[in-house]
Amino acid sequence: MAENPRAETLSHKLIAAHLIDGKMVPGEEIALRMDQALLQDILGTLVMLELDAMGVDRVRTSPSVQYIDHTLIQQDNINADAHLFLKSACERLGVWYSGPGNGISHPVHMERFGRPGDSLVGCDSHTTAAGALGMLAIGAGGIEVALAMAGEPLFLPMPTIVGVELTGELPEWVSAKDIVLELLRRHGVAGFRNCILEYHGPGLAGLDAMDRHVLANMGTEMGATTSVFPSDEVTRRFLASRGREGDWQPLAADSGCRYDRDEHIDLSRLEPLIALPSSPDKVVPVCEAIGEPVYQAYIGSSGNPGYRDFAVAAEIVKGRRVADGVSLDINPSTRQILSALIDEGHLAALIGAGARLHEPGCNGCIGMGQAPAAGRNSLRTVPRNFPGRSGTREDSVFLCSPETAAASALQGVITDPRTLDMPCPRPREPGDMAVDEAMFVPPLPPEEARNVNLLATDNTPPLPALEPLPDTLDAPVLLKVGDNISTDDIMPAGARVLPIWSNIEASAAHTFEAVDGGYVERAREQGAAGHVIVAGDNYGQGSSRENAALVPRFLGLQVVIARSIARIHWQNLPCFGVLPLTFADPADLERLDRGARLRIEDLRGQLARGHEVVATLGNGAQLRLRHDLSKRQQAILSAGGVINWLNMSSKEAPA
Amino acid sequence: MAENPRAETLSHKLIAAHLIDGKMVPGEEIALRMDQALLQDILGTLVMLELDAMGVDRVRTSPSVQYIDHTLIQQDNINADAHLFLKSACERLGVWYSGPGNGISHPVHMERFGRPGDSLVGCDSHTTAAGALGMLAIGAGGIEVALAMAGEPLFLPMPTIVGVELTGELPEWVSAKDIVLELLRRHGVAGFRNCILEYHGPGLAGLDAMDRHVLANMGTEMGATTSVFPSDEVTRRFLASRGREGDWQPLAADSGCRYDRDEHIDLSRLEPLIALPSSPDKVVPVCEAIGEPVYQAYIGSSGNPGYRDFAVAAEIVKGRRVADGVSLDINPSTRQILSALIDEGHLAALIGAGARLHEPGCNGCIGMGQAPAAGRNSLRTVPRNFPGRSGTREDSVFLCSPETAAASALQGVITDPRTLDMPCPRPREPGDMAVDEAMFVPPLPPEEARNVNLLATDNTPPLPALEPLPDTLDAPVLLKVGDNISTDDIMPAGARVLPIWSNIEASAAHTFEAVDGGYVERAREQGAAGHVIVAGDNYGQGSSRENAALVPRFLGLQVVIARSIARIHWQNLPCFGVLPLTFADPADLERLDRGARLRIEDLRGQLARGHEVVATLGNGAQLRLRHDLSKRQQAILSAGGVINWLNMSSKEAPA
Repeated sequence: MAENPRAETLSHKLIAAHLIDGKMVPGEEIALRMDQALLQDILGTLVMLELDAMGVDRVRTSPSVQYIDHTLIQQDNINADAHLFLKSACERLGVWYSGPGNGISHPVHMERFGRPGDSLVGCDSHTTAAGALGMLAIGAGGIEVALAMAGEPLFLPMPTIVGVELTGELPEWVSAKDIVLELLRRHGVAGFRNCILEYHGPGLAGLDAMDRHVLANMGTEMGATTSVFPSDEVTRRFLASRGREGDWQPLAADSGCRYDRDEHIDLSRLEPLIALPSSPDKVVPVCEAIGEPVYQAYIGSSGNPGYRDFAVAAEIVKGRRVADGVSLDINPSTRQILSALIDEGHLAALIGAGARLHEPGCNGCIGMGQAPAAGRNSLRTVPRNFPGRSGTREDSVFLCSPETAAASALQGVITDPRTLDMPCPRPREPGDMAVDEAMFVPPLPPEEARNVNLLATDNTPPLPALEPLPDTLDAPVLLKVGDNISTDDIMPAGARVLPIWSNIEASAAHTFEAVDGGYVERAREQGAAGHVIVAGDNYGQGSSRENAALVPRFLGLQVVIARSIARIHWQNLPCFGVLPLTFADPADLERLDRGARLRIEDLRGQLARGHEVVATLGNGAQLRLRHDLSKRQQAILSAGGVINWLNMSSKEAPA
Repeated sequence: MAENPRAETLSHKLIAAHLIDGKMVPGEEIALRMDQALLQDILGTLVMLELDAMGVDRVRTSPSVQYIDHTLIQQDNINADAHLFLKSACERLGVWYSGPGNGISHPVHMERFGRPGDSLVGCDSHTTAAGALGMLAIGAGGIEVALAMAGEPLFLPMPTIVGVELTGELPEWVSAKDIVLELLRRHGVAGFRNCILEYHGPGLAGLDAMDRHVLANMGTEMGATTSVFPSDEVTRRFLASRGREGDWQPLAADSGCRYDRDEHIDLSRLEPLIALPSSPDKVVPVCEAIGEPVYQAYIGSSGNPGYRDFAVAAEIVKGRRVADGVSLDINPSTRQILSALIDEGHLAALIGAGARLHEPGCNGCIGMGQAPAAGRNSLRTVPRNFPGRSGTREDSVFLCSPETAAASALQGVITDPRTLDMPCPRPREPGDMAVDEAMFVPPLPPEEARNVNLLATDNTPPLPALEPLPDTLDAPVLLKVGDNISTDDIMPAGARVLPIWSNIEASAAHTFEAVDGGYVERAREQGAAGHVIVAGDNYGQGSSRENAALVPRFLGLQVVIARSIARIHWQNLPCFGVLPLTFADPADLERLDRGARLRIEDLRGQLARGHEVVATLGNGAQLRLRHDLSKRQQAILSAGGVINWLNMSSKEAPA
């Protein structure tokens, strides 16, 4: 195709339509207007506390939606109380409330609120899934979401736009999950950091909106800022089936546009793939893993949320029985999809085969139920298999398609679905999937909202006050970690810790607990004198949880020095007053071990003068480091984080 | 009806058919042959460890069935590992395994294994539910269940037989739960201690097998040893619909038989009833409680397990929407019933109205999920509302029928279902409810079973060794409690503690935690020197959990002195070497406060000589106490519990 110098990518169009400040040059900070906001429960609580601390009366983004999808296990009153807190905050601030059992934020948002061309910010790294509908959907730390909800722009480095061309048609037994696993196989968990994956090409026509969701969702697993799909006939059909055709508009890249990078996948050449434990990029063809015993097959999550993902599994197991000893766990992703599965007979087929049915929500994807037995193989359609994320410390989680999971559940060993003696199922969504609103509570009118008080709980204490960094830092390295440390490693999820995430003091005891059980004690001994964490590549990958920055800061963290830092975590760190640095020479990682002492003088001056920061080690040697903070981020860091910065600004501004 | 001196009650017939030793005189110890055994997961683990400690190769009861119904929340590997342990124990010992998701033991057992005329022992206090089918079904401590499974008789005091005559027909909107609440209203939680409730009369014809289950199940809430129903045409229809008509036989009391006590209920005069927080006997008419705000309506559990209980709720809410802010939680009791609810459209109606659907199992009934927000009103169809049993310490749980719960969910306040503007629903079970076996694993043949090894976990350490009581006891009272202390109070359930119940050392920290947070520390300080617990009436009511005896013994408990002690707990105490005593003069409770010191000399001699035990207080005064231990129980107590006693017996016997 001839290049057209004026032709624009869809990503550029979407960014341009929301650009408030900055230049669309990769790496330069841009400021974007956010139309919509998505909150999930475990991080939404902090966002509501932050909005309250900012004195916000009513949010500006519309719709803004609070989903209850992580905290469905009510073993005591903590989660139930948190739901009441969040509902009261929704009523007070003008936010939609999607109650427990209504489903996972990402697919529910697509079904009910997704609108091509809109921008969306969410306090969940998989917010990107809405890119499936031609939205510009970005995950961010809670406090950045709070700012956006308050009407401020969202700041981020202009991403590199990667065009991913899909050609051909998927073979039988191969589905969307295999496409994204192929990208993970090629490029790894850091392969698209600070990139937008923009899908295009004739292969798209065969991918339904929820198939696209799988890809847009798991772009996050490769570090992508987001993923973008055109809004086309497939999109129109999806919205029409949800009774919202009026929200559709066609959107596409201009013919002949040029991408910063190009990627091509011939769908017809793909085969069933599987990610081995315990990283999403340890991908091999399923045929190389066959025969391994299977303890659990888990169908659900935002990593395979579509009706077809459950219906395929149902058609595979229908009239058969899962192998003795296999737990086939079904996690419907939305209430709508559960209802459709009931109506179409698929739920009966799954239960008849011996499946276990769980409430629609995130559940086992984040260790809230369905944790596997220790050391036993669990095949899951979820987006991530970081160590211990299932809830079981010594877990062995594989990522695969629903086809592979269901086939393996039947055989009791990892099975290539192509070897099943049956025709490939091709279920189609029922024509009418219009959203039933029984579990939504719409925003209150402003005059009623003013009368609502927040229902505080034991786990909604005020956020801890943070001190600004001194201008001369002098602190020891208390922790040195390797590559690809995820925010799950920093601040664990799971049913023990999730319910207290909004209680910074209580949750601090769990920081890095699976990585280094002594870190918290060392940090507490060091106290306000501060400390440094040193890491390899892609530090802070995965979930957007801002407490992975706030809690270590609360424990005295001042500086993170890594070979590289994942985008959202890199943005979260200065928001809570932590300085993120990288090595000018990656080999210097070897020079900085636990116990080393590090001195940085004239911190603010060095940051302001350029990208280099020079530190002195305990032995007097110098270490060259690099920062990429914008002036705005420097000001936030200097203030000791966003909340201090806002308070200072409001004091400085005339009343 | 003319009395016939030879006419027998059905209870007498069932007991006589299983009597191995003893006389059928109320209060005298009888020994009964047990045909079947039922284990649930949280107590089954201890039973399996006990069977292993006894050297049992294959159980004698048939069928023996291990149900996984309490430990469905897998937030880490503890429960999943326990399932693997139990499955391996089933394979080794010749026990059926009913996997997670197959449903609650009591209704599943009725559906698949219930057989009129059989005796059944189970390590769950609601084992009695099988009395609905004309079985002699008795809950017992795990170690007594283990003994019965090993082929030994079950010992218990011959119960008083109470004839409960039902006449008339239930009015519209009144159902089985209201009948048993009426009995609780009349007689309280201790009203039928050491009794069998034998239902008879023309009113029975209108109660289906699962309605009878509601009554037989909750006889336990009044202290009854069990409840017995005739096996009649209703029973035949139930078994026929499950494809097991061949297991049916007619059973009934002889015409004109005489009961030890008589009770009469005119069903036509009943109205909807509700038990207020927090005891099952705080019963009032629903119309006296209307208008209270409702946070949760919870349909499920063995306290209302029937298909009709869910179908009624579905028909009430169909096409409507539960009130804003109400959590309508649906806990299907069995996989069979879930399937039928799907097929008949009831599940769709419930979900359409905004209900939350949970996996079939015990769940919220025992604090494993669905815990209400603190202080909020939860209307539940479960059998018990002891404080904190929901999982929420400051809970406010009401017990009621599915009609009342569903009506209240619609209105958002406690509602008398008779005030709903609709015809009274009268759903009927589908004709075919034949049990699908996909989630059962049958026993292995003995030759294969021998090769199976138990899959031990961190929570299956060997049972702690227990020392026999010294012949002179001299110990302080470390805890004094009031009336109706339940085994839930002694050893809490809930998701924090249940998973570690089989780990005596780990679970000990939670003993009496909601009653007296200092007890464990005082007991540990006192250590092996031992201590005494003093209580009011009906001590140890509720659940059959034997760890409520074993764990306090492990912490040094030597003697319980109460005004009265609930039967199962009274039997559990000597099984683990604790002496259960009652006050000869109930007024003496006032003389024995915490801190008092108690001395009992010549313990074994005093026990052997009669029912009186004399103790000396610290001030030299004497206290007259009473024991009801049989010679067998005295021998067990003297040995320091059943396991020591068995080991001594096997050493004494020739090899």
